[in-house]
Amino acid sequence: MRTYLDCLPCFMNQIVRVGRLLELPEADCLAMLHEFAGRFTEIKLEDPPPKTAIMLYEMISRYSGHNDPFKKIKRESTEKALALYPELKKRVELANAPLNLAAKFAVAGNVIDFGVASQFDLAAEIDRVVDAGAFGHWHEKSFFAALEKADWLLYLGDNTGETVMDRLFIETISKETGTPVTYVVRENPIINDAILEDALAAGLDGCAEIISSGCSAPGTVLDLCSPEFLKLFYDAPLIVSKGQGNYETLSGVDASIFFFLKAKCSVIADHLGVQTGDLVLTKENE
Amino acid sequence: MRTYLDCLPCFMNQIVRVGRLLELPEADCLAMLHEFAGRFTEIKLEDPPPKTAIMLYEMISRYSGHNDPFKKIKRESTEKALALYPELKKRVELANAPLNLAAKFAVAGNVIDFGVASQFDLAAEIDRVVDAGAFGHWHEKSFFAALEKADWLLYLGDNTGETVMDRLFIETISKETGTPVTYVVRENPIINDAILEDALAAGLDGCAEIISSGCSAPGTVLDLCSPEFLKLFYDAPLIVSKGQGNYETLSGVDASIFFFLKAKCSVIADHLGVQTGDLVLTKENE
Repeated sequence: MRTYLDCLPCFMNQIVRVGRLLELPEADCLAMLHEFAGRFTEIKLEDPPPKTAIMLYEMISRYSGHNDPFKKIKRESTEKALALYPELKKRVELANAPLNLAAKFAVAGNVIDFGVASQFDLAAEIDRVVDAGAFGHWHEKSFFAALEKADWLLYLGDNTGETVMDRLFIETISKETGTPVTYVVRENPIINDAILEDALAAGLDGCAEIISSGCSAPGTVLDLCSPEFLKLFYDAPLIVSKGQGNYETLSGVDASIFFFLKAKCSVIADHLGVQTGDLVLTKENE
Repeated sequence: MRTYLDCLPCFMNQIVRVGRLLELPEADCLAMLHEFAGRFTEIKLEDPPPKTAIMLYEMISRYSGHNDPFKKIKRESTEKALALYPELKKRVELANAPLNLAAKFAVAGNVIDFGVASQFDLAAEIDRVVDAGAFGHWHEKSFFAALEKADWLLYLGDNTGETVMDRLFIETISKETGTPVTYVVRENPIINDAILEDALAAGLDGCAEIISSGCSAPGTVLDLCSPEFLKLFYDAPLIVSKGQGNYETLSGVDASIFFFLKAKCSVIADHLGVQTGDLVLTKENE
């Protein structure tokens, strides 16, 4: 997906929001806005937004003085999600259609995202999803049919914390279909996206092989991924892509990708043909 | 009021939104974003946002090729508001407390503002205000007590179209208290703010003396106003200030100013201590 004009002010907004979240002084936030404005002409509208986000979050890391400024926030997200895990696991096990409920929980987990909004309430969002979720393009039948046929599944992770709902979904897939899963994390820290240590903290190593995409953007920019990942990506009979960043970078790519995400902004919602806030499970050209 | 960090991305957003509203090509919108980003370091956080908006809207005018790019939109706003006027007038005349209802209509009219959002529904907003408005700091008693004592009133206008509700409020003031009113417009076109011809189109010359502030910002930046206006401003026993732009530029000024506005963004809402979307009638330090 290209970068739209709306994305440019949104990058600026992310600097302000994330700067505050990391408790950086106002002078630093202003300096970052000035620096980013000074590099505005480097942004290419033909690139997906996560490619530009690399430059943006590299700058934020530099000002914060930390290689992984979201480390503490990520740890808290994982702890919060792990605290919910036993109850969610029980609900899935008792459900009439465990896979369907676990898929919904996995999308609900996508509410965790500091790049788009600073506040979220995971437990409330999960209840909202199950009780009265707004689903746009919820193609679960098509996904489960593809899962039935696939001999393995490539699963592209997104945010830390959401990883715990991914784990529950993958455990349910293993139990119901026995399909082996390879779980993909980012190469280096960016925003609160899951890297290897975050996936391990969520317990994903118990149900999936964990690999890095080789890419450090908050998405999967194929021309920045490792050859090892690309081989798996193009071999995979079925791919689950979690979140907006992966959608922005993989929309239009010719592969069997099902996108699981919450449409958090109007640009993505318009691109998908859904309402902002909708929960989406879709494959392009379905 | 100073410029907050949040205002900087908001300026960028205004370029995108207003550029689309004026149907400028995407390439022009992008060029404006680049030009504005190139001048980012000129923005002074100690200035009120409308002072920066001068540079922004001068640029938009230049790209649009029109001195008054909102002329058509302003004419339509006035026509829509004039179409509602007879019914609103009747409701005020039949009301138990005509001044109170006319004051509410005047604030409801402040929903018309293309700088903040492109779409509005005036009739629906007016009904919402009267039926179930969210009022934050609604100090009407204090205002009407001040009006009782004042021998004349200086009324600072804001958006075109809203001018028609201002007219109804001023006509009601004339009828109920006989207080003469001087109505103030911007010196030159900026966004959809009312200039002399817009005030005349709303019929304000039938109930008030109309003057210009001498300032062409979307607000009342005192150090950019004419000496004639400043004399009136500092002599005025009572001032009505409509809208965010006037609030942003006059908050903190030592004068008897009552602010009538809809809090359209979180920065203004936080500054006022109300919720975004609230309708406000307040005097500072009351």
